[in-house]
Amino acid sequence: MTMMKTPLLMKTLMDRGPMFAPDVEIVSKMRGEIHRYTYADLGKRGKQLANALKELGVRQGDRVATLAWNSYRHLEVYYAVPCMGAVLHTLNLRLSAEHLAYIINHADDSVICVDEDLLPLLERIADQIRNVKHFIVFTNSGNFTTKLAPAHDYDKLIQGKSSHFVWPEIDENSPMGLCYTSGTTGNPKGAMYTHRSNYLHTISQCMADGMGVTTADTVMAVVPMFHANAWGLPYSGCMLGFKQVFPGATMDGASICQLLQDEKVTITAGVPTIWLGVKAELEANPGKYDLSHLRSMTCGGSAPPRALIDWFESKLGVEFVQAWGMTETSPLGSVARLKPKMKDWPREKQLDIKQRCGIIAPGLEARVVDDNGNEVEHDGLAMGKLLVRGPWIVSEYYKADAPERFPDGWFDTGDIATIDREGYLAIADRAKDVIKSGGEWISSVDMENILMAMPGVAEAAVIGVTHVRWQERPLACVVKKADAEITKEDVLRFLSDKVAKWWLPDDVVFVDAIPKTSVGKFDKKVLRVQFENYQLPT
Amino acid sequence: MTMMKTPLLMKTLMDRGPMFAPDVEIVSKMRGEIHRYTYADLGKRGKQLANALKELGVRQGDRVATLAWNSYRHLEVYYAVPCMGAVLHTLNLRLSAEHLAYIINHADDSVICVDEDLLPLLERIADQIRNVKHFIVFTNSGNFTTKLAPAHDYDKLIQGKSSHFVWPEIDENSPMGLCYTSGTTGNPKGAMYTHRSNYLHTISQCMADGMGVTTADTVMAVVPMFHANAWGLPYSGCMLGFKQVFPGATMDGASICQLLQDEKVTITAGVPTIWLGVKAELEANPGKYDLSHLRSMTCGGSAPPRALIDWFESKLGVEFVQAWGMTETSPLGSVARLKPKMKDWPREKQLDIKQRCGIIAPGLEARVVDDNGNEVEHDGLAMGKLLVRGPWIVSEYYKADAPERFPDGWFDTGDIATIDREGYLAIADRAKDVIKSGGEWISSVDMENILMAMPGVAEAAVIGVTHVRWQERPLACVVKKADAEITKEDVLRFLSDKVAKWWLPDDVVFVDAIPKTSVGKFDKKVLRVQFENYQLPT
Repeated sequence: MTMMKTPLLMKTLMDRGPMFAPDVEIVSKMRGEIHRYTYADLGKRGKQLANALKELGVRQGDRVATLAWNSYRHLEVYYAVPCMGAVLHTLNLRLSAEHLAYIINHADDSVICVDEDLLPLLERIADQIRNVKHFIVFTNSGNFTTKLAPAHDYDKLIQGKSSHFVWPEIDENSPMGLCYTSGTTGNPKGAMYTHRSNYLHTISQCMADGMGVTTADTVMAVVPMFHANAWGLPYSGCMLGFKQVFPGATMDGASICQLLQDEKVTITAGVPTIWLGVKAELEANPGKYDLSHLRSMTCGGSAPPRALIDWFESKLGVEFVQAWGMTETSPLGSVARLKPKMKDWPREKQLDIKQRCGIIAPGLEARVVDDNGNEVEHDGLAMGKLLVRGPWIVSEYYKADAPERFPDGWFDTGDIATIDREGYLAIADRAKDVIKSGGEWISSVDMENILMAMPGVAEAAVIGVTHVRWQERPLACVVKKADAEITKEDVLRFLSDKVAKWWLPDDVVFVDAIPKTSVGKFDKKVLRVQFENYQLPT
Repeated sequence: MTMMKTPLLMKTLMDRGPMFAPDVEIVSKMRGEIHRYTYADLGKRGKQLANALKELGVRQGDRVATLAWNSYRHLEVYYAVPCMGAVLHTLNLRLSAEHLAYIINHADDSVICVDEDLLPLLERIADQIRNVKHFIVFTNSGNFTTKLAPAHDYDKLIQGKSSHFVWPEIDENSPMGLCYTSGTTGNPKGAMYTHRSNYLHTISQCMADGMGVTTADTVMAVVPMFHANAWGLPYSGCMLGFKQVFPGATMDGASICQLLQDEKVTITAGVPTIWLGVKAELEANPGKYDLSHLRSMTCGGSAPPRALIDWFESKLGVEFVQAWGMTETSPLGSVARLKPKMKDWPREKQLDIKQRCGIIAPGLEARVVDDNGNEVEHDGLAMGKLLVRGPWIVSEYYKADAPERFPDGWFDTGDIATIDREGYLAIADRAKDVIKSGGEWISSVDMENILMAMPGVAEAAVIGVTHVRWQERPLACVVKKADAEITKEDVLRFLSDKVAKWWLPDDVVFVDAIPKTSVGKFDKKVLRVQFENYQLPT
């Protein structure tokens, strides 16, 4: 071998912050108080934690779980556990007790680090998770009681431990992180990241055309550390040594605006809901906040409304970048930036591009295919299944759940997408929600977005209902606003000049509410059961 | 395996330009004329070339050499040869005939692509390189004669070939590129890059903190494509699809300034000599050029003078970034950017940092060690051997030449360096030039730089001469300017408040000229022989 086969290990990247940015701050908002320390502290406490975990019996490959908000302690676990060769398993604190117990047992977690205020979530399932050997509690009071045993105070546990730890040289394909998807059907499925996959994801994220984060930035991820590793930003932070800001559990518009201002944040990232809240706060309080340091915001999780993108760019002068990814893609899969030639395009045409979720990241490949596996036309209209491939995409779920999602070495995202002439992807629907009418696909999401912009409409969901001739036809389920007077004809008229004629729902029903999942997404599964035998007019 | 083991192949990166930036320009200056085409053309012609090479019998692993200036045709070879699984061997056209023949045979090149005007270089050694099966000539006239055989016209050879080629899926550790170092002693030694090493180098280079190139940039590498792959920029260009500009063979200040202006270049890279020429041209012609698009320039190869860095930043308002690397490091090893806290530092202190060659790149590791292998103090003063390690560093020379350069899995760069408290490296000397006095090291380069700034001094070299008590002591060899009247005492006085007292040369000799190598570097080997038995005053 002519080039060094130095393994791609997270330790090589993550030690750079403590080494080259020892005096740079890491800021955590903790119940209103601001905690500050530096990468030197992170390095020291992280190694103390590694020694403590080793003494508790944690060995290479063992799962160390977290059930916690974003904070410096959580970051210490992010740092120490992969570097020492163990596996960081971030538990989603929004899950049902049933799913939480399932996941802890499926992952075979040996240790759980838990925020004091989240202890009740674990206590409720204490007798179902008997294989967990230790609970380590993040506590500010230093004074907690729990029926979980044995339970340690995190700070006391690491206190006095050696701050020296030689990270092991291990195989780059060793596991280092585990995240479960909160699937709406069946049990959650685990994505097991490796050192190699996460190393490549991290440097890819830091490309100027990726999220473009630099050593000189102050970055606030308004993304839970239990969601796809907070989009990988804690890792990039440790590699580059940029100032990191953790917003804690309060993510309302006012709290976020205050932190963006006070910490002089330059790059931030979050889901559309967060930015809707920030926009509302800024509009309600003109001149209150100085956000002049902010230069770029990344938006993912779901498609942001066009007006939101435009408002941040035109009114606030901040670059608004849509990105796409999933737990199974580490998560960064695509980023929507304008190509140079588009800089002179009319604004509306630019927004057409910025509403798409971007071009597949360098190093990954994407295909949009029809039911026969053939690539659809790149015209921005033809819909197909989005398949992806690359070194930071899962090749199987942990313990080989759901093998049908991995056809021919690709990962079937479960998204229905289009791809335009310029190579930009857009997510049209989730595969299970798309309506299949006479062999053609109709996007439920597109029509819902249009309907929810209609005056008098509070919420709307569109589902497929069995049809003798077309297999499926769309049915619109609409929730009126309190005082609204709208009819089926109004709804169809509103849609008629905005979608293809054959997309128009065969019927409209008015309902009191759209059923929702525990995380607040439309639960169309429930709607479909409810309207299973619905008779469409002929 | 839970994550895809998709191999890290250059084809995945390099196909992105043709795919996502088909209409972006690639501009080549060819003997005064400007040639323009697009990434779509590159993709098409590159695949035609692959088919042509396949028909000529080129198989996976075979070496295809180039002896050429920078141009779109050279780029097509850069693209096609690695993607088809063969090895791109870039021949240095400045080498002696003897070394050229040695390298071609050592590499066992089966094909050589050669610029028409460089044919004489090969004809001179025609009877020594009989294993080469085909010569392919880059010609604009379409009309050349040569005694080399068989010789093909490049454009005619690829014309009519299919522009369809399915790049093979090969092992990521397969070789893809070969560069020889023009060593000043012994035969040149080969660095054989692999797909994996070059893939990692490419994405690392595109990090915002690396060279920071983006899709939106126009990049001109004023670095020969036969020198360490033009610092990797042709690969980054194909991956990101940015506009590339090739300056051709004319690299004087006026030509470079004209291209920077006409093509609206935003990022450029080259050695100090280039930027000295550009500075002279701009100073001689104030207001002549509009370089307002230029935002950043990277400088490597040797240390740029402090005044040069300051001039470009203060006078021209362009970020001037020093980088360090070598053929053996792919080449990018370190980049000198200011840390955020340094933004408020006094200018002179900032320049102290910018004169150093930077912090080791993410993914690589550096150690500066004394003769016993212990790390020297990080105080910016203690000198030691610079060792590096990482996935884009050579692990051995091709055919295992010079194994002593690879102690314990590290690569001994042959540079003597210091590292400061902030982690910035600086190259103090080449190991073979450093003067070892009583167990301590004296940097010849530092004293030469000081002496060459002394009024009346045209050139100066400092070498070690054998000394009974101290093993070695410095001797300054000084070339006076034509009309200068300076004495030994003047020289020592000038040095005395700028270096440690024990560094002061024991003697000064005035010489007519400093001997130079074929590429214009000081040839201290010759000087050392000349003064081998020099009697230092006691």
